[in-house]
Amino acid sequence: MENFKKYLVEFIGTFFLVFTIGATVAFGGEGVIAPLAIGFVLMVMVYAGGFISGGHYNPAVSLAAVVRGALAPVQWIPYAIFQVLGGVAAAYLINYMAGGMLESGPTFELSHVLIAEFLFTFALCYVVLLTATSKETEGNSYYGLAIGSTVMVGAFAVGSICLGAFNPAVAVSTIVLGVSCCVKLSCITALVNLVAGVCAGLVYRFLNCKED
Amino acid sequence: MENFKKYLVEFIGTFFLVFTIGATVAFGGEGVIAPLAIGFVLMVMVYAGGFISGGHYNPAVSLAAVVRGALAPVQWIPYAIFQVLGGVAAAYLINYMAGGMLESGPTFELSHVLIAEFLFTFALCYVVLLTATSKETEGNSYYGLAIGSTVMVGAFAVGSICLGAFNPAVAVSTIVLGVSCCVKLSCITALVNLVAGVCAGLVYRFLNCKED
Amino acid sequence: MENFKKYLVEFIGTFFLVFTIGATVAFGGEGVIAPLAIGFVLMVMVYAGGFISGGHYNPAVSLAAVVRGALAPVQWIPYAIFQVLGGVAAAYLINYMAGGMLESGPTFELSHVLIAEFLFTFALCYVVLLTATSKETEGNSYYGLAIGSTVMVGAFAVGSICLGAFNPAVAVSTIVLGVSCCVKLSCITALVNLVAGVCAGLVYRFLNCKED
Amino acid sequence: MENFKKYLVEFIGTFFLVFTIGATVAFGGEGVIAPLAIGFVLMVMVYAGGFISGGHYNPAVSLAAVVRGALAPVQWIPYAIFQVLGGVAAAYLINYMAGGMLESGPTFELSHVLIAEFLFTFALCYVVLLTATSKETEGNSYYGLAIGSTVMVGAFAVGSICLGAFNPAVAVSTIVLGVSCCVKLSCITALVNLVAGVCAGLVYRFLNCKED
Repeated sequence: MENFKKYLVEFIGTFFLVFTIGATVAFGGEGVIAPLAIGFVLMVMVYAGGFISGGHYNPAVSLAAVVRGALAPVQWIPYAIFQVLGGVAAAYLINYMAGGMLESGPTFELSHVLIAEFLFTFALCYVVLLTATSKETEGNSYYGLAIGSTVMVGAFAVGSICLGAFNPAVAVSTIVLGVSCCVKLSCITALVNLVAGVCAGLVYRFLNCKED
Repeated sequence: MENFKKYLVEFIGTFFLVFTIGATVAFGGEGVIAPLAIGFVLMVMVYAGGFISGGHYNPAVSLAAVVRGALAPVQWIPYAIFQVLGGVAAAYLINYMAGGMLESGPTFELSHVLIAEFLFTFALCYVVLLTATSKETEGNSYYGLAIGSTVMVGAFAVGSICLGAFNPAVAVSTIVLGVSCCVKLSCITALVNLVAGVCAGLVYRFLNCKED
Repeated sequence: MENFKKYLVEFIGTFFLVFTIGATVAFGGEGVIAPLAIGFVLMVMVYAGGFISGGHYNPAVSLAAVVRGALAPVQWIPYAIFQVLGGVAAAYLINYMAGGMLESGPTFELSHVLIAEFLFTFALCYVVLLTATSKETEGNSYYGLAIGSTVMVGAFAVGSICLGAFNPAVAVSTIVLGVSCCVKLSCITALVNLVAGVCAGLVYRFLNCKED
Repeated sequence: MENFKKYLVEFIGTFFLVFTIGATVAFGGEGVIAPLAIGFVLMVMVYAGGFISGGHYNPAVSLAAVVRGALAPVQWIPYAIFQVLGGVAAAYLINYMAGGMLESGPTFELSHVLIAEFLFTFALCYVVLLTATSKETEGNSYYGLAIGSTVMVGAFAVGSICLGAFNPAVAVSTIVLGVSCCVKLSCITALVNLVAGVCAGLVYRFLNCKED
């Protein structure tokens, strides 16, 4: 039952993350609106659910937490499942409200996708591990702001040259939403995100090796 | 007298919330200005008055607090009254300054109003209960930022397909301001907001059942 | 010497506040830039100097602090002098950089100026006293964010119908900058700001009467 | 080895700072996007790495920390080297992704460059020292927000009349990126930044002289 609470929190948080992404694309304005809304909804959900589930809402972050030792490896699969379910549920609801799938986005250069999704997913997981799982920063009030802002910065910096998911659950949801140009792009993105999560976990272990 | 202080704080906070909504519509610019201003004024008032009254400024939040056990049920009525009075007073002042009622907004699809107002009022109450009333997050410095940002995100995401009130006191005030297309829209909105508050209270009780 | 440190901090903070106001008008862009920059520079300076001088940078805030009992009455005059000196020094530097005074702003309706400057200066002083001088919120990390955001919200909401100073030192500096349409407007603004500061101090004393 | 961890953190943080600068210029939009992204990425990296290396990502900040006594003088050179290496690596990566150097920026008036870079680098170092190295504000959760926001405000206020680096590592990186009109501008900027860091260190020592 305690585990189910964690999964529910991960479901709710990822639901609102993808709902906000879809709604700002379908009904919102242009320019800064989507990055601001996406960064802040992640921040909000991290602050709300962090003390229950860790507030990942992202299988790459959960994988980084596994590598760092903050999440039991056996928990990664249910975490990822509920995250993807939350995202996909939100995507279907947006489809229903918008009367169909959203307009498909452009194709991107493969090198841009690989570099940009890797770098900002790495930054996101690096920030999560250092601000939300390290003993030396325990009890701080900034972890949600730092985590949400990393995604906002990524969306500002490279949102025009890749999906800007930094999150396999979001990458999968963009297929349902229709904003991904093709399934292959979403799958490559999800894979790169997971690799970046592992790398961030390893860098964290190097930086905090005394603690472990 | 201690209770009256709480009501006064709720009055002042809701007054500034609705005054900011009205002023950004009447005198402010377009695009991101209204959502930013509305989210941040709520944050500011939550930080200022939270330790006195709880900093609800929203009958749906007060109802969620009742369901969660953070507000005595008998207090809900005076809280709601002072919240609505604060909002309506601000709306009349905006009318006076603008030389009449503001331009009426568009009509919305009923399904959009129900879904959008429900979801973001649920998110708002969920965030309030988890960040501002839970023992496990006591003493944190982020609750106001999380609460205000939830409304900002809602205004960005669904502000074009519903009133974007997420708050019965705001919904009622939009009638006075004139920005609601009709009384019926405001009443439906207020009702949905209250239902969402109850749902968030129940979810909180499930998530934190050990504590209660 | 300890007092002079406080005055120096007040000078530096007000200098950067007015420099930012002048620079965003003279060299910055339109729309959200000035309110964002002004709100955040105030936040930054409050966090930097708050523990030394209180981080007022505003004679109306200092007056509210006197009424509340957080600043010795005899200190109000040197505080206000160094605040005005900091603002005026920044204004002259902006004039030098811009090659003369800035373009004069519009005239405003007197009732708008009185209401808008009163309300947001009241809100600012109310927020300062509750978040930065109350025992019950001591040691929090949000006071600067709340204080700076109040000015940002005010600039968004009523920046087009009044000077948007909420601060007598800023009101005086707008004369030097040239952005005030006339000396009379700046003087009325400064006076309203001070009255609002006194009102906020009295409301605080009512709300926190147990503590005093 | 402990020192190398610090250098690695400084490298990573400065890498993401310059990568974000380059990406918002090369791929991002106009207006508020670059200042928001740059301010927030600095905030994020300060929160992530602050407890390991101090989170400077800026040789002028490191120099201010030396003057204040928060960094051993002998550490300044490796800190500056890893900061510059991180920035230059990011700049080359942006060049690769953009298919060449970015468009060169305008020339600026020398007096504007000197004043604007001095003032906001001074403000940045002043804020870093007071919020992140002072005993009286130890354990606060706002230092990263204050530090990142100072750069954001500087970019808003004077970003159109100077490089807006406030950081010698950024100034050097703009040569590689191609956004600096000439090497001389970047060198003058870097030099002014360092002078401002020393001045901020001296002002801090005056303000906190009891503590030392």
